[in-house]
Amino acid sequence: MKKLRFGILGAGRIGRVHAETLAFRLPEAEVAAVTDVNRAAAQALACHCGIARVAESAEEIFADTGIDAVLICTSTDTHAALIARAAAAGKHIFCEKPVALTLDKIDGALAAVEKAGVKLQVGFNRRFDSNFARVREAVAGGEIGSPYLMHIISRDPEPPPIAYLGPSGGLFLDMMIHDFDMARFLSGDEVEEVYTAAGVLVDPAFRAANDLDTAVVVLHFRNGMIGTIDNSRKATFGYDQRVEILGSKGKIASENRYANQVVVSGVKSVYTDLPLNFFMQRYTESFAAELQAFTRAVLEDKPVPVSGADSRVPVVMALAARKSYDEHRPVRLKEICA
Amino acid sequence: MKKLRFGILGAGRIGRVHAETLAFRLPEAEVAAVTDVNRAAAQALACHCGIARVAESAEEIFADTGIDAVLICTSTDTHAALIARAAAAGKHIFCEKPVALTLDKIDGALAAVEKAGVKLQVGFNRRFDSNFARVREAVAGGEIGSPYLMHIISRDPEPPPIAYLGPSGGLFLDMMIHDFDMARFLSGDEVEEVYTAAGVLVDPAFRAANDLDTAVVVLHFRNGMIGTIDNSRKATFGYDQRVEILGSKGKIASENRYANQVVVSGVKSVYTDLPLNFFMQRYTESFAAELQAFTRAVLEDKPVPVSGADSRVPVVMALAARKSYDEHRPVRLKEICA
Amino acid sequence: MKKLRFGILGAGRIGRVHAETLAFRLPEAEVAAVTDVNRAAAQALACHCGIARVAESAEEIFADTGIDAVLICTSTDTHAALIARAAAAGKHIFCEKPVALTLDKIDGALAAVEKAGVKLQVGFNRRFDSNFARVREAVAGGEIGSPYLMHIISRDPEPPPIAYLGPSGGLFLDMMIHDFDMARFLSGDEVEEVYTAAGVLVDPAFRAANDLDTAVVVLHFRNGMIGTIDNSRKATFGYDQRVEILGSKGKIASENRYANQVVVSGVKSVYTDLPLNFFMQRYTESFAAELQAFTRAVLEDKPVPVSGADSRVPVVMALAARKSYDEHRPVRLKEICA
Amino acid sequence: MKKLRFGILGAGRIGRVHAETLAFRLPEAEVAAVTDVNRAAAQALACHCGIARVAESAEEIFADTGIDAVLICTSTDTHAALIARAAAAGKHIFCEKPVALTLDKIDGALAAVEKAGVKLQVGFNRRFDSNFARVREAVAGGEIGSPYLMHIISRDPEPPPIAYLGPSGGLFLDMMIHDFDMARFLSGDEVEEVYTAAGVLVDPAFRAANDLDTAVVVLHFRNGMIGTIDNSRKATFGYDQRVEILGSKGKIASENRYANQVVVSGVKSVYTDLPLNFFMQRYTESFAAELQAFTRAVLEDKPVPVSGADSRVPVVMALAARKSYDEHRPVRLKEICA
Repeated sequence: MKKLRFGILGAGRIGRVHAETLAFRLPEAEVAAVTDVNRAAAQALACHCGIARVAESAEEIFADTGIDAVLICTSTDTHAALIARAAAAGKHIFCEKPVALTLDKIDGALAAVEKAGVKLQVGFNRRFDSNFARVREAVAGGEIGSPYLMHIISRDPEPPPIAYLGPSGGLFLDMMIHDFDMARFLSGDEVEEVYTAAGVLVDPAFRAANDLDTAVVVLHFRNGMIGTIDNSRKATFGYDQRVEILGSKGKIASENRYANQVVVSGVKSVYTDLPLNFFMQRYTESFAAELQAFTRAVLEDKPVPVSGADSRVPVVMALAARKSYDEHRPVRLKEICA
Repeated sequence: MKKLRFGILGAGRIGRVHAETLAFRLPEAEVAAVTDVNRAAAQALACHCGIARVAESAEEIFADTGIDAVLICTSTDTHAALIARAAAAGKHIFCEKPVALTLDKIDGALAAVEKAGVKLQVGFNRRFDSNFARVREAVAGGEIGSPYLMHIISRDPEPPPIAYLGPSGGLFLDMMIHDFDMARFLSGDEVEEVYTAAGVLVDPAFRAANDLDTAVVVLHFRNGMIGTIDNSRKATFGYDQRVEILGSKGKIASENRYANQVVVSGVKSVYTDLPLNFFMQRYTESFAAELQAFTRAVLEDKPVPVSGADSRVPVVMALAARKSYDEHRPVRLKEICA
Repeated sequence: MKKLRFGILGAGRIGRVHAETLAFRLPEAEVAAVTDVNRAAAQALACHCGIARVAESAEEIFADTGIDAVLICTSTDTHAALIARAAAAGKHIFCEKPVALTLDKIDGALAAVEKAGVKLQVGFNRRFDSNFARVREAVAGGEIGSPYLMHIISRDPEPPPIAYLGPSGGLFLDMMIHDFDMARFLSGDEVEEVYTAAGVLVDPAFRAANDLDTAVVVLHFRNGMIGTIDNSRKATFGYDQRVEILGSKGKIASENRYANQVVVSGVKSVYTDLPLNFFMQRYTESFAAELQAFTRAVLEDKPVPVSGADSRVPVVMALAARKSYDEHRPVRLKEICA
Repeated sequence: MKKLRFGILGAGRIGRVHAETLAFRLPEAEVAAVTDVNRAAAQALACHCGIARVAESAEEIFADTGIDAVLICTSTDTHAALIARAAAAGKHIFCEKPVALTLDKIDGALAAVEKAGVKLQVGFNRRFDSNFARVREAVAGGEIGSPYLMHIISRDPEPPPIAYLGPSGGLFLDMMIHDFDMARFLSGDEVEEVYTAAGVLVDPAFRAANDLDTAVVVLHFRNGMIGTIDNSRKATFGYDQRVEILGSKGKIASENRYANQVVVSGVKSVYTDLPLNFFMQRYTESFAAELQAFTRAVLEDKPVPVSGADSRVPVVMALAARKSYDEHRPVRLKEICA
């Protein structure tokens, strides 16, 4: 079997998830090297996943002609530059979302990718979740007719550490960006205008950090459909990730995922355990599936399922959503791009 | 048992529902007379429900000193005037929603009621539905903590006849008015600002009638909570009436009601019959409960559970929602009232 | 409208349920008189339901030529004799289940009914429940193909007062009799043999009363289908009334009924309120529907939906189930009838 | 990390499942060799899972001192002899169920294991399923009080090829054996007597093979609890694997598992996709978990979670269940063992 040889940049939480997938679940992939500014973390990951080499730097990986593709799992502010350098080195690239927090950086990275003729896939893993994939299939296949209304609910069980908020880009660029991608993916359509209602309801620390913890964004789609995205940084019962779409022939809705299907009828209530609590449990399968899709696309020289444009538009939407909040009015996406 | 003697004005669809409740389900109520501009309809209802007398006019009912209370089930444009005349005659009043489509008419009617010292209850029946009542109880009792986000879904199975659209006041005043009431009832709070995204997606005839068939209205509550109301004139699978609220301690959601709890696991899918299809099936119990509450409030001289203000504010919200749509910007409720 | 005039024998719990139905929900019925050995109870019911006359005795009701039909809601040991006398007086009869605890008494009553040519319907109300009716419809219509396996679960929330156990006939004749009827009704087939596994697990008082509180009865149907009935006198969470059938084309299952469709996602679990707790809440609609069916069958001179045989066979099954338990072996129904 | 080195005997369907787990999901395990009478199958599996060596015979594996443990995935009739030889060679043993179809063979194998002092775990994987584990946890922790009634439903989507029926031992020894294990595992108790109702309803070919395709077995537990096991060879909608237990404090029930949590409200019904259809999809996680538990038990020298007795008792139950069917009477387990 022909294998795709990976170098991993970044041995943090998400780097570890991807390394385990490549090491233990994808026969057609192989990890040749890993690097991290925290060398001990890279070492630990190499040991855990049987990765032969801990590289000193990203450059060492880019220079390794035995490496076909890189996985960029570093902090967001480094993504664009690493993409450009990896592309220049002729590596195919899988990069965590978002590529960057500003459009000029993204455009620079995408231009480098295009010039080098390598493949770039961005980590919008939810597209590979069996629930969202089933919803997309229904919409694309006409199972619910023409779409009228879409609601995306996406809530974290707990706010992240406040220290994390600054570099993340805030609610729209860090958290809702996945939902902007979902809005496009599920509808197969584009958003033209957004309106944001948002606030700080969970923890005043968000206000101090000039961020928000609660938001509803209304989406006006090109085809007339109206959508909403609901984000909250705190859903005590677990990771709340749902979507529903009403169409001319019916409705499709995807519910949360649970660790078991057990129902207890007790003395005071009928109850179940809570939904899966963390994105790594909830989206386990999708993390594996996105890497598999990327690996196969490269090995078979086919288009990757999440394109360069797919990495750019959600950032435009996030910037528009923030502008709508700041200016307290509906904002057209064209205002951001122009 | 002391009984409350009713006169019914209007023997149409909703008049019939209420007459049956009074006749067959409320031992403490009695229907003394019914009237309708269509005398045959009044006659038929009298016969069906064992009502002794078919009155020639509303005036005949107002003049009957044996009648304690009137049920106003006529067309919306007559409500305000009938309320004023009934109040002047010293009758307690149960009136279908809305009282009127303009604030001056409503204010006139409320003033007449106040002057006469009679009781007025408006037919916001959903407050008496066991699902919405349970949600309200949870919010009021702190079961889900401080509310962050609320979503109300309210969709008809089929659009009404287009001829009906004109006098109805349109989507916001005819259909969403119930949801505006729900927003206030469930939250126990007031809305300060609305933003409307809406369109004609179901049937172009709505556009011709200067009406809308699909809308999302964003609600900004005084306490910071953000809400949405989703209305569609067409949900092929039945009457879609749900609500969910996220709070600091959890989430509460109410699902649709079904005629049975039967699940079939077939060869191609696992399926159930559709939800109840029509408001009279879905809200049967609430129609009875609201009349019971009114009857008892009058008999025991206690406050009615839906006050004069409760009949006025949803109209303000509806006017603001329409203005938001027309002017394509968020609108504060104060702009309507001032 | 032609009305059926009823006399009610027995003003206890179930007599009251039926009286309310006739008085408040069935326009085509009228209650002319009620009687009870406890005259105060009859009086109270007459007052509550607007029944004109409290009769001194059943005989007074049988003698009243203005009365078309009687409702027998007295204690079980009086049913057979009252049926015979009512039949002799030419009254149509609706009798609570079971007709009697022994076959000779039942046969005597059925013979009297047949001789008089009156109609007799027995109170197997569950046939009129929308869940069980839907399951029957599926089986009859071939929706799940040929039936293979059937499971009936039927559990009370609380044991009855021990004093009640003696005259009731015990678990099989008092409680499981409804499930024997369901087994026949849902399958449209007959049982040939039963095997009983049972015990006293809930409360030792059942043993002292020579009764059982927990039982599983295996049913061998004529068509080869195998069934089970599960009875328990205690299900802390409420009235547990379910059925499922596996067939060659699929499975059909009916779940419990709840007062509301609200789900709370809390800090420790996702929960709902308990299922309806009492047979009068759970089966409200079926009590009304069975009386409506009886009333219409009499008024229109059509067959009643629960026949004389339908009242006899479940008693045979109950006697066989008890014999199986006593003799610790499978028992054929023919052993009881012969 | 210390690793446990495995030799795999049998490269068929289940051997492949286990090999993939050891190769790709268990860092603490390593597969040193595989053998199969079909050498090509062994070769293919070795290639797929990166297993270094294809052994000529089981003996070659037993003789390899670098191998710590063997996985026996051959046909049932070879299990007992292979266990004895592996034990004699000092290998720890993980063997697919059942160990043998007769008690003397099982006893011989268990004696060899005991003599050698090696560990033996049998493949009752369902104990490691998150649903059944949660149910066990509830029973053990008193969450539902004292157990009264237990129902196990276990149905295959399709009958196996008829050719497979002969060597399998038939319904009770091949299929229901898992459920006998579940009955013991979930209750933490032992069964004293069984009664079997069974037949051929799905396909007459079962009758020709002297086998059954449909069965209900009633279980009488030592603690008084009554249980049933329902087996069918055909559930058109998928793999139907459920259990429910009623106890003095409530009920616990586990539902089927689905590939997604998507609900479509269509024009005719509200539907979902079918439950997972095959035991390898439904029990994926449990196959991995049982091997992990075995590997750790050996590495840490702790008791294996499924003991020798656990492998023997279900066979006794299966033999008793068949005897009950053949003799048409309840059979005590002591009749089989004595």
